[in-house]
Amino acid sequence: MEQNYKLKISYDGTRYYGWEHQPDRETVQGKLENVLSRMCGDVPVDVIGAGRTDAGVHARAMIANVRLDTPMDADAILTYMNRYLPDDIAVLEVRLASERFHARYNAVGKTYQYTCFDGPVKPVFDRKYYTPMEQTLDVERMQQAAHYLEGQHDYKSFCGNSRMKKSTVRIVDTITIRRRKGYVYLTFHGTGFLQNMVRIMVGTLLEVGVGRREPEEVQAILDGCDRKLAGPTAPAKGLCLVKVDY
Amino acid sequence: MEQNYKLKISYDGTRYYGWEHQPDRETVQGKLENVLSRMCGDVPVDVIGAGRTDAGVHARAMIANVRLDTPMDADAILTYMNRYLPDDIAVLEVRLASERFHARYNAVGKTYQYTCFDGPVKPVFDRKYYTPMEQTLDVERMQQAAHYLEGQHDYKSFCGNSRMKKSTVRIVDTITIRRRKGYVYLTFHGTGFLQNMVRIMVGTLLEVGVGRREPEEVQAILDGCDRKLAGPTAPAKGLCLVKVDY
Repeated sequence: MEQNYKLKISYDGTRYYGWEHQPDRETVQGKLENVLSRMCGDVPVDVIGAGRTDAGVHARAMIANVRLDTPMDADAILTYMNRYLPDDIAVLEVRLASERFHARYNAVGKTYQYTCFDGPVKPVFDRKYYTPMEQTLDVERMQQAAHYLEGQHDYKSFCGNSRMKKSTVRIVDTITIRRRKGYVYLTFHGTGFLQNMVRIMVGTLLEVGVGRREPEEVQAILDGCDRKLAGPTAPAKGLCLVKVDY
Repeated sequence: MEQNYKLKISYDGTRYYGWEHQPDRETVQGKLENVLSRMCGDVPVDVIGAGRTDAGVHARAMIANVRLDTPMDADAILTYMNRYLPDDIAVLEVRLASERFHARYNAVGKTYQYTCFDGPVKPVFDRKYYTPMEQTLDVERMQQAAHYLEGQHDYKSFCGNSRMKKSTVRIVDTITIRRRKGYVYLTFHGTGFLQNMVRIMVGTLLEVGVGRREPEEVQAILDGCDRKLAGPTAPAKGLCLVKVDY
């Protein structure tokens, strides 16, 4: 009998073409589906993620759901998956979920964290998880700029998909920016994010942080509803999906 | 005028054939010497490390010294090196040292840390810096076994070089083993270590930790002075040189 399972997954996105499966390319969803499909006797399996992370973006706790017909219990599924998945993807939890649980439709909030390092000597061990900065960041200026981005807005200027036809209005509850030694962490919580939206917000805030833009300009960028007004898309490797709320 | 500099270096050893230069192979010493040689106008340069780490072993703070004839000051040397070194090697400090300072001869102690993970789900982000264990480790048994290894002993059974002709007597002051969630950290402080010595001690302690050997056996292994008596050489990737004392 088919049952619905909720999965919590952690991955290092460095060598993947993002979450969503693509023909002939390594993706996280593709890896998960391959392992689960084999586990269930080579039947097709659909893993539904809470969202799609871009190529190179990491996740500490992506949530997904999947319907499986297997005699194995949740613990056995977790053990099986971790045995056959590569070491840059780990399944943290497998739980039997209600029949109606849908990882994408039921998600009510997401937290992303973006990590930069602006100290003089770049740390080596976590180098795949932060974006190195050549200039020192002024966190206070970045915080001022971030306030303009909080709330409910039309984030069209921060949308990487130029052909987006649906609404580009979203709510970003909080943006917190804090420094710990040479690291600067930007944490975004919102109900949902457009394609590349966090990375474009970060790219814009970094321009404020190095003095290339004024914090007040962010209001005009929002109002203009034009991607060209915002800063560049910050590199993928600094970004990590840290939590999904249900 | 040639001056002597002390360097503090951090590296991820994953893709290197160890510290010591070898023809046609990527080594940490080789990388450092190439960059410094270019900096000084293509004159040959000898970087003397506090010790040699094996292929795949990491360092948080290797110490080295090098004689350079350059008009640049220590800060400028540091900046230059970090600009041209790959991102898995970072120079943390460059200081003018006394003419007689020798990173190997003057070293009076070293601290190595070995990291294992024995929890059910292996973390992905630091996967290149710990050794995954299939069985749960009994830290108390490992601590009992480690006591036999502390002190001044002939560590011939823990020497990876079977043709070692010099003395294999060393002093290991302290071995501490502690658990933090699924991680088990083994920290060794001693005056000096033989080739592979830390990894063979770890390989032996892990056999005790999973119940394959009794803690008391370690005494007989030491007394036997025979490499075959000890456990296997634990994988390089869990090992990190964390401190050198002068």
